[in-house]
Amino acid sequence: MFDVDPHRFLEDLHMLRRFGKDGVGVRRRAFSEADIAARDWLAERIGEAGLLPQFDPLGNLFGLAPGRSLLIGSHSDTQPEGGWLDGALGVIAALEIARASAAAGGPAVSIVSFQDEEGRFGALTGSSVWSGKLALQEADGLRATDGMTFAEARAKLGSDVGDFVDPARFAGFLEMHIEQGPVLDQAKEAIGVVTGIVGLRQLQITVNGQQNHAGTTPMALRRDAFTAVTCISTLLEDRFANVVTPQSVWTIGHLRLEPNASSIVPGRAVFTLQWRDADAERLSRMERVILDTLDDVRLSSGCEISAERLRQDLSPMPMDETMQSVLSQAAEAVAPGRWRAMPSGALHDASNVAALMPVGMLFVPSINGISHAFGEDTAEADLVTGLQVLAEAVRRV
Amino acid sequence: MFDVDPHRFLEDLHMLRRFGKDGVGVRRRAFSEADIAARDWLAERIGEAGLLPQFDPLGNLFGLAPGRSLLIGSHSDTQPEGGWLDGALGVIAALEIARASAAAGGPAVSIVSFQDEEGRFGALTGSSVWSGKLALQEADGLRATDGMTFAEARAKLGSDVGDFVDPARFAGFLEMHIEQGPVLDQAKEAIGVVTGIVGLRQLQITVNGQQNHAGTTPMALRRDAFTAVTCISTLLEDRFANVVTPQSVWTIGHLRLEPNASSIVPGRAVFTLQWRDADAERLSRMERVILDTLDDVRLSSGCEISAERLRQDLSPMPMDETMQSVLSQAAEAVAPGRWRAMPSGALHDASNVAALMPVGMLFVPSINGISHAFGEDTAEADLVTGLQVLAEAVRRV
Repeated sequence: MFDVDPHRFLEDLHMLRRFGKDGVGVRRRAFSEADIAARDWLAERIGEAGLLPQFDPLGNLFGLAPGRSLLIGSHSDTQPEGGWLDGALGVIAALEIARASAAAGGPAVSIVSFQDEEGRFGALTGSSVWSGKLALQEADGLRATDGMTFAEARAKLGSDVGDFVDPARFAGFLEMHIEQGPVLDQAKEAIGVVTGIVGLRQLQITVNGQQNHAGTTPMALRRDAFTAVTCISTLLEDRFANVVTPQSVWTIGHLRLEPNASSIVPGRAVFTLQWRDADAERLSRMERVILDTLDDVRLSSGCEISAERLRQDLSPMPMDETMQSVLSQAAEAVAPGRWRAMPSGALHDASNVAALMPVGMLFVPSINGISHAFGEDTAEADLVTGLQVLAEAVRRV
Repeated sequence: MFDVDPHRFLEDLHMLRRFGKDGVGVRRRAFSEADIAARDWLAERIGEAGLLPQFDPLGNLFGLAPGRSLLIGSHSDTQPEGGWLDGALGVIAALEIARASAAAGGPAVSIVSFQDEEGRFGALTGSSVWSGKLALQEADGLRATDGMTFAEARAKLGSDVGDFVDPARFAGFLEMHIEQGPVLDQAKEAIGVVTGIVGLRQLQITVNGQQNHAGTTPMALRRDAFTAVTCISTLLEDRFANVVTPQSVWTIGHLRLEPNASSIVPGRAVFTLQWRDADAERLSRMERVILDTLDDVRLSSGCEISAERLRQDLSPMPMDETMQSVLSQAAEAVAPGRWRAMPSGALHDASNVAALMPVGMLFVPSINGISHAFGEDTAEADLVTGLQVLAEAVRRV
């Protein structure tokens, strides 16, 4: 069986960090110069590792082992101001394992760096098209905030592009990623074995009250749109208590008041309410609580309240049971007592790939839970533990 | 004694409405062409009424009766999208009473239309300078949102300008105005005798929490700036109950979240909290409740919370007792049982003039409480009742 080389792994991780480096963070937006240069560098490394580098028409970069193989990977594009690890960690861990495994004569491991996971165009664009969730023609019409379309972006790939890679050649997919949350760091644990990727629902809620003079309108005669929002928020806090688990989350992240002036009673408030859970049934129960609460506040506040779905629901995606079991055994072997099973609150390419093959996923800690920011980091020992657990899982698959 | 002519009064009110007319509303911003034309028209009318028209250096237009007199008036400038009555009502009522009184040989009544009550430059600019509350030099530096200074604006007055009018020539001041709130309309009453103009305090409150991923950050580990705001708002609703009267008001009218994105736990919220009451002691008690609540939410939410005063406090300004008594007697004589004593929740020139002489003020109903909008209106019968009460008060002063 193969052995991984932590030193070589960390060295490559720091090599990749140099593409788009900005202080301790990186700017490596999908299809930016830095991103394309990083992928070209990775293609070379893939070749050196004894694998066949292949860009597909989306800019997903594969390193293919011959015959049927296990696929490992993540993504190497970043947010506009991204951390140095995020998906890069999973790509370089995959490279190290595939390289070590190829040198040792097996097992057969292929790797991938998906394109536009961070959603410069859509969200998880590369794996969405590859997994059949999103039609290529539809993806081509997606537009970045700077006006560029996905079609224009992928035209930059030029003559490097090969065919789509047939998913049938892979027996399964493993992804390592930073947690992007504070749970492992706070618990001083090294590994999270992902049980599933949570589902997400979101409503945009509009409250129409009565705009009024803030001096001449008695409290009893007001229909204050903002007071109605605080009422909704406070009631949900109470009413969710009987429905949720400690893994359920809900957020009012965006709010706009009109006319938004200190001497005018707000006549209108528009806000988003987003909730996530690993259990589709619980997502629905939370939705019923929300809609009941809107009904109640409509009556108590005298405001008109309407709710609209502006984005598609995302269903929870459980990870493959066998993959979870193998990852758990590997975690217990490498880091006994220092791991936990946990849901992923963030989306990952694994969620798309799960439509094609058995998928497993593991997390390493994010210091202070910081993610999608230059300050994102993970202790070096935890990076190496993550590599070792992933390698051990590959040996056991 | 004199008798007023309701028909002539309504005719002049509609004549003034034509300056800056836009549909049923008016656009007659201070020092706009429409405003200056309206004041020139009013100066002619003043002359026809047997009074001496005089613009002071601020653009305040007086119609002076000889010797010592009672001053009546309001303002004829409007908001960018103003109602046709607002201050114009008080100016034309004053004109009718002064005209009738001059024709009847007394009592001596002068009139005024103050300039920039609606705060194109400052707030109540004309009466602020005239009453000595604001230095002319300071006013001259005030700038409208279009960049024009007050000095440039009043230069438009040209050679029409006379001296400042000596306040000592006036025995007192009466102002009639629309209520700008729903109280009289809802109660189906015709007249409000103003007991005082409420004081106003305002804090800008900044909540610094922790910006986080809305999927990966468990509820228990969040420091959500918006949740802290809803907590403050809800607690104040409860805690004010033991402190306030039905005339006290408080408003969160302006709120900004950062980064204000649906998938990110808000890291920062900045909002204004404004409260008004006719009693300075109650304003202070409300402030203590607010500051205690900020302390409590600071502890419970883990957010940093700070409060800053960005605008000057306005002290409550009680109306003169004798004037209130005279107006009450006049209201009971003209509209028995259809009037009430009430505070003014909005600011008025009367608040400034009260520093110079005894001041009284009365309200007529605003239909549906609408004000500072094209849709502002008052039933014609109520306009005439207001005129009659004001005239009766002048007879009794």
